[in-house]
Amino acid sequence: MTSASNIENVLVSVSKKITPSENERRKVVSLAGRLVKRVERAAARAKVEARVRVEGSVAKDTWLRKEPDIDIFLQLPASTPREALGSVCLKIAREATKGSKQVERFAEHPYLEAFVDSTRVNIVPCYRSKPGEWLSATDRTPYHTDFAKPRLNDRLRSEIRLLKRFMKGIGVYGAEIKVGGFSGYLCELLTLQCGSFADVLKAAAAWRKPWTIDYLDYYRGKEEDLPKIFAEPLIVVDPVDKGRNVASAVRQDRLVEFVAASRQFLRSPAENFFFPQPTKILNRNQLLRNMKKRGTALVLVKIGQVKAVPDILWGQLYKTQRSLRRLLTQNDFNVINDAAWSNEIGLTMLLFEVEDRFLSRTKKHLGPPIEKRVECERFLRKHVEAQTTVSGPRLENERWIVEVKRKHADVVDLLRESLKQGGRQVGVAGLISEAFTTRVNVLVNEEIASVYGANRDFAGFLTGYIKGKPKWLSLSD
Amino acid sequence: MTSASNIENVLVSVSKKITPSENERRKVVSLAGRLVKRVERAAARAKVEARVRVEGSVAKDTWLRKEPDIDIFLQLPASTPREALGSVCLKIAREATKGSKQVERFAEHPYLEAFVDSTRVNIVPCYRSKPGEWLSATDRTPYHTDFAKPRLNDRLRSEIRLLKRFMKGIGVYGAEIKVGGFSGYLCELLTLQCGSFADVLKAAAAWRKPWTIDYLDYYRGKEEDLPKIFAEPLIVVDPVDKGRNVASAVRQDRLVEFVAASRQFLRSPAENFFFPQPTKILNRNQLLRNMKKRGTALVLVKIGQVKAVPDILWGQLYKTQRSLRRLLTQNDFNVINDAAWSNEIGLTMLLFEVEDRFLSRTKKHLGPPIEKRVECERFLRKHVEAQTTVSGPRLENERWIVEVKRKHADVVDLLRESLKQGGRQVGVAGLISEAFTTRVNVLVNEEIASVYGANRDFAGFLTGYIKGKPKWLSLSD
Repeated sequence: MTSASNIENVLVSVSKKITPSENERRKVVSLAGRLVKRVERAAARAKVEARVRVEGSVAKDTWLRKEPDIDIFLQLPASTPREALGSVCLKIAREATKGSKQVERFAEHPYLEAFVDSTRVNIVPCYRSKPGEWLSATDRTPYHTDFAKPRLNDRLRSEIRLLKRFMKGIGVYGAEIKVGGFSGYLCELLTLQCGSFADVLKAAAAWRKPWTIDYLDYYRGKEEDLPKIFAEPLIVVDPVDKGRNVASAVRQDRLVEFVAASRQFLRSPAENFFFPQPTKILNRNQLLRNMKKRGTALVLVKIGQVKAVPDILWGQLYKTQRSLRRLLTQNDFNVINDAAWSNEIGLTMLLFEVEDRFLSRTKKHLGPPIEKRVECERFLRKHVEAQTTVSGPRLENERWIVEVKRKHADVVDLLRESLKQGGRQVGVAGLISEAFTTRVNVLVNEEIASVYGANRDFAGFLTGYIKGKPKWLSLSD
Repeated sequence: MTSASNIENVLVSVSKKITPSENERRKVVSLAGRLVKRVERAAARAKVEARVRVEGSVAKDTWLRKEPDIDIFLQLPASTPREALGSVCLKIAREATKGSKQVERFAEHPYLEAFVDSTRVNIVPCYRSKPGEWLSATDRTPYHTDFAKPRLNDRLRSEIRLLKRFMKGIGVYGAEIKVGGFSGYLCELLTLQCGSFADVLKAAAAWRKPWTIDYLDYYRGKEEDLPKIFAEPLIVVDPVDKGRNVASAVRQDRLVEFVAASRQFLRSPAENFFFPQPTKILNRNQLLRNMKKRGTALVLVKIGQVKAVPDILWGQLYKTQRSLRRLLTQNDFNVINDAAWSNEIGLTMLLFEVEDRFLSRTKKHLGPPIEKRVECERFLRKHVEAQTTVSGPRLENERWIVEVKRKHADVVDLLRESLKQGGRQVGVAGLISEAFTTRVNVLVNEEIASVYGANRDFAGFLTGYIKGKPKWLSLSD
């Protein structure tokens, strides 16, 4: 079987699984219609002049089977005060979904998430603004719908669903900070541009920096300027706003994962890319055996509850992760890998793996080159009789050298010491720092097993970390 | 007391100790005269037309009290076959010093070292060649004597003695490979150029690369060409041969030591620079305590007997030291310091100090960047299912990464493994390699104590290593 027909077989089979049934489609569309009416009525009662529409994947018929998210947008007059935008919408949305489970969410503005007939519904405010005169980030959404809808047909919708499912399967779907990946609208534009799912993957597989897409040719003849205008690694000019990069949320690491997975899929196509096997969680003994085999030090920084919406939480968590990794490196620990995990409701962790928990007590400290006479004198004055001097000073390769006692030879001590006051001085982000001040918990190797046993989601995460390779890679021939 | 008058006091005191007494001078000059006559007679009996002269420090009256070396040179006709040069000289020298202890030595040619009336005498052959038409390396020596002698006076001879004693004291005197330092003739030229001992030190203290001296102004107006003509860090054009650098034997590390010691002496002058205190050898317990305090791994490679004259032995030993240091570094061991030691008669050692004897069993191995598609495929084929793979492959910073089992996690294993066949493949020099093939002995930390106890010279060396700073530095205020 050739790879092409092999791909075709996989895609046909996957398509069947991700296309909503006629029954589901009818139900979702009917529910969306009813919700629009209810929101309109609630707005009228509140004397708010709102245009109410279904947007997103339900409007465009690109949602994945059994995963509909109904997005209802309230377009409010430009005269609505900014502070009122959210509160007005929330009030209307609450009334319109009375009796359903309701969760207040926050992006640029507050919005309401409700569960109606077991379907997630987002009721989101925006301004009724003109293109180029955007008043809030969500104002573009109705225009995105209007742009995409007439350009789609059944075949393209099917290709888009494949791309979304593929991205979900390999873990790069979603523009939220946690993922830093591809939005649904971005999947639609990539498919429109390339023509099909397979062609998007082929383009990704051949990726060279910079990858730029300008569907409406706004920058025709000036394509080379795009990387100067947009800083991001993937640049997809928004057809409804030539000043915006639809892929601005896509982080380099996610883009690279998509590129690598695309190559792998084209080489050995399989359904597992779309539907990865659930992680077989290692049991305690397997975990301990694996740690022993590695012979490294896995260090877990357990953070208490961080009171913030997910985007804020993950932003601060990633910043803290980078800072602490830098701290370890600056203190001579060889960091093999690191990772962040949070259940977003009270348990948040940073994981660092270093070659050794303990470094030698002594380290070599480079002094000034012999040419710099004044610096040399200062260096000698400081080190010749110092308590910290273990050996030397001596000359090596034209510079003064001294062997000194290390400040932190134990990675656990280093972290505890640096974090006990909150760690702001080593770059810990504000809300994480507050959680640290309450209590810092630094666990190493076997000590992690207790947390591991107590939280199945974390255990799944750690199992994945321990294996250390993308799930789709195990499929390789 | 000002530093200048302080220096003056030190130099007056040292001068007294290093200037030969009238009695010593009379004895040495008389012995040298008698030896010249004896060598002349022996040459005549052998029917060799040789011009016989005293050269070196005795000829120039620059030897250090109680350390005379009488150098007698036989200038042979240019017609003498090269192979005969040494043998003819040896025969004559043996006869002339019959009854004294005799040792055959080798530089470019064989020569004889004899001990007459407890004084070391070197009887050395050379050609009677014209300047610029040198036939062997020693031909220049008589010209050096003729150049220096008429330019010296009592004051300059005294300054030269100070410089030689200073260089001996700080360990940079001697052009042999072991030291790689300053010859007596070089000391004379530096003093002639700068005017006095203190001025040589001031010039050294202000050292900037390149330091060039051209006493007879051969390169006037073309001084900038000197570093292109001569590769060495210190360039002193030979007044008797403008194509030769008198300082060609001076290695960078010795030059730098001289520079640093000169600064220190000018700042805090003391007799100890000239006459360092003998090393107080650490006892076994002190040694073990110090090793424990460092927390590093001291690894001793014990080499058997190397059959070679000192210059060859040290040349090969240093080359081997560099190669093994590179081996350790390439295998991720952090080398803190290393050293070579030999008593030149059967016991030779290399010492390496690394931060840790053991590295983590796992190491991070960098694969190709994601842009290189073909290399990426090859990397994945190699590592995905490999036995050596501990974790991954995974993506990090736009490249594939894999955590693999380390080949050598123990520095002792690494050295034993690499040296058991002689170590030629890791850059061990020929004669050292032959000694290795017989028997490699790699000792670590406490194991070194046995060798330490058995050899006092080595114990002195190791004590110095452990302290790790130049003796003259302890003098600092």
